[in-house]
Amino acid sequence: MDIYQKSLEMHEKNKGKLAVISKVKVTTSDELSMAYSPGVAEPCRAIEKNPEAIYRYTNKGNFVAVITDGSAVLGLGNIGPEAALPVMEGKAILFKNFGDVDAFPICLDTQDTEEIIRTCKLLAPGLGGINLEDISAPRCVEIERRLIEELDIPVFHDDQHGTAIITIAALINACKLTKRDSKSLKVVISGAGAAGSSIAKMIMQYGVADILCVDRIGIISSKRTDLDFVKKEILSFTNKEDIEGDLALALEDADVFVGVSAAGIVTKEMVASMKDNPFIFAMANPTPEIMPELAIEAGARIIGTGRSDYPNQINNVLAFPGIFRGALDAGAKKINDEMKLAAAYAIAEVLDETELTNTYIVPSPFDTRVVEAVAKAVMKAAKDSGITRG
Amino acid sequence: MDIYQKSLEMHEKNKGKLAVISKVKVTTSDELSMAYSPGVAEPCRAIEKNPEAIYRYTNKGNFVAVITDGSAVLGLGNIGPEAALPVMEGKAILFKNFGDVDAFPICLDTQDTEEIIRTCKLLAPGLGGINLEDISAPRCVEIERRLIEELDIPVFHDDQHGTAIITIAALINACKLTKRDSKSLKVVISGAGAAGSSIAKMIMQYGVADILCVDRIGIISSKRTDLDFVKKEILSFTNKEDIEGDLALALEDADVFVGVSAAGIVTKEMVASMKDNPFIFAMANPTPEIMPELAIEAGARIIGTGRSDYPNQINNVLAFPGIFRGALDAGAKKINDEMKLAAAYAIAEVLDETELTNTYIVPSPFDTRVVEAVAKAVMKAAKDSGITRG
Repeated sequence: MDIYQKSLEMHEKNKGKLAVISKVKVTTSDELSMAYSPGVAEPCRAIEKNPEAIYRYTNKGNFVAVITDGSAVLGLGNIGPEAALPVMEGKAILFKNFGDVDAFPICLDTQDTEEIIRTCKLLAPGLGGINLEDISAPRCVEIERRLIEELDIPVFHDDQHGTAIITIAALINACKLTKRDSKSLKVVISGAGAAGSSIAKMIMQYGVADILCVDRIGIISSKRTDLDFVKKEILSFTNKEDIEGDLALALEDADVFVGVSAAGIVTKEMVASMKDNPFIFAMANPTPEIMPELAIEAGARIIGTGRSDYPNQINNVLAFPGIFRGALDAGAKKINDEMKLAAAYAIAEVLDETELTNTYIVPSPFDTRVVEAVAKAVMKAAKDSGITRG
Repeated sequence: MDIYQKSLEMHEKNKGKLAVISKVKVTTSDELSMAYSPGVAEPCRAIEKNPEAIYRYTNKGNFVAVITDGSAVLGLGNIGPEAALPVMEGKAILFKNFGDVDAFPICLDTQDTEEIIRTCKLLAPGLGGINLEDISAPRCVEIERRLIEELDIPVFHDDQHGTAIITIAALINACKLTKRDSKSLKVVISGAGAAGSSIAKMIMQYGVADILCVDRIGIISSKRTDLDFVKKEILSFTNKEDIEGDLALALEDADVFVGVSAAGIVTKEMVASMKDNPFIFAMANPTPEIMPELAIEAGARIIGTGRSDYPNQINNVLAFPGIFRGALDAGAKKINDEMKLAAAYAIAEVLDETELTNTYIVPSPFDTRVVEAVAKAVMKAAKDSGITRG
């Protein structure tokens, strides 16, 4: 039985994947009077008097909504909010299992940018944070930015930054292992949507100067007339020589390929045209831009994919649970770039330099050191940037 | 230490009252692939193909949002969405503890009727039902009606119907015990907001012809020029002789007083002016319209209050967990009047005729027979009215 059939049966057997439980017993009249009327009036009054007390007397500080509009679900496309629910439930239980965050799914019956923003703001009073999920680009970028600006709880779109953070972690360790200087790398990114744009920005922040970003049409350059606002931003710090061309041209003499695009678009010849011993992060799901076996035959030194059946799995679960854990514990009002970069460094540093090999540059998703290290680093970065409450 | 202080400490110790848990293990690569990418794509595809499959592969069918705008919280008034959260969490855990429903709080940052309706509709794809809570009248009536009309999941405003259902149950058993004919009763209801209006309607549906409804101004009559749409509806089936006057006048020769209004507004003299052996349901919280001791001195036969420290506690927890349990299990698209009345009869019938006494006309909130009986009756009523899915 394949993984899809097994998954379907598991979902049917359990009728979904999450449940809500009570942290307090309500089996006597006295317990009922404390958990509900009349006793519950007292924490209500305390919060009315001092809004900050909501974090002391309720679960708000650990309560995160996983919000989607179903417009870009996994590789399935715009399948709508109902069909997206299994993914949102999945994300919610990963939050719980990996980060001890109480997360729950919200599937919105609208794909209107302003309405999504407004709805998230209306939901905010009871939420400790918002994880945006599977919303199509470039709308997801605007939605996240506006919410970060207009709300004072952490808002994070994992599809943008999750992969970016793990990719940076992988890049850090790949450079460490091969003693390459990250500053002098030439990096080519395939894909300029949600993930690609965040990867580009984060690689730039990490210190890489020479970046080319390529989408379906070709290299993002000033000659292009079809660029949305996200791609225009990418252009502002990539492709400094403003070259035009396709992916094959972009990859010539490159050190690193980062793919968040489509199955099989990278050939052995393209890898062979790169500098010696390149790094290939081919993260299209479920089929990478180039299969690891082919990349190795073509001379690649370090290969990462999104798959669990190959080494160096670039898996978002390494980042978001610790990021929210740290942000919530810090009382952060936002998740900013410093916190994201701190998470990337923390993930990389979980592996000791002596542990690193070509097939082991990122920790396993089940490495329990990760969430703790990420949470601690993110908490520190939040406090250092002065964006915590009180 | 009083109940308020004890409640405050309990809330602080537990940091709120609910948590989200995972129903499936995610500790191996295989389990991760089933619960999340890539396996989760299969239930997504199944739901995309057949929307009804969402009830098979997700928790939607047991997932209920407890939604408020914080405009009428307990007896505390318009304290806003943040300060309302302890109550919503409390309601959510009562859903779980009494009805095994996975409920979670939503505190909306708006008190605009249209925006609340719109937001509930946007949230619906992932929800099995909506429990509206602590929204002020008459807005709550319009919000509930519109949502019942426009959505195909159960929507229920407990503040309207919860007390009404238990009051009818109490009335049924009080009549049974005292061998009175409900049809010939004169019933006076004090309070014409959310609860009062639903009680009036339900008592009429139960078969009582002679009903007077009294609010702060006096008896609701056609001479009144201040009636909102809810009170105009009440007028259409109450006060058939169209009398004017105050509560004292209304109570003369009445058989039953039902209070969902304010502490201490009923005097011994008023009770003495009623028919012999009247029923007094004085449910203002935390202080009833008349204290049970006084009512008994004035000749009352059966007394119910909202309090756990007196007999015959009229407690909503007897109704809503079983109502949602039954509605969800039936696949009901609404909670209609037939289902509410069925719940009232079921609650009454939990007590055998031989068990009934003046101080025992409603079951205890902890009587485990209740939720099962209510769920079964509600499920049958839903199926009989042909409002179930598929």
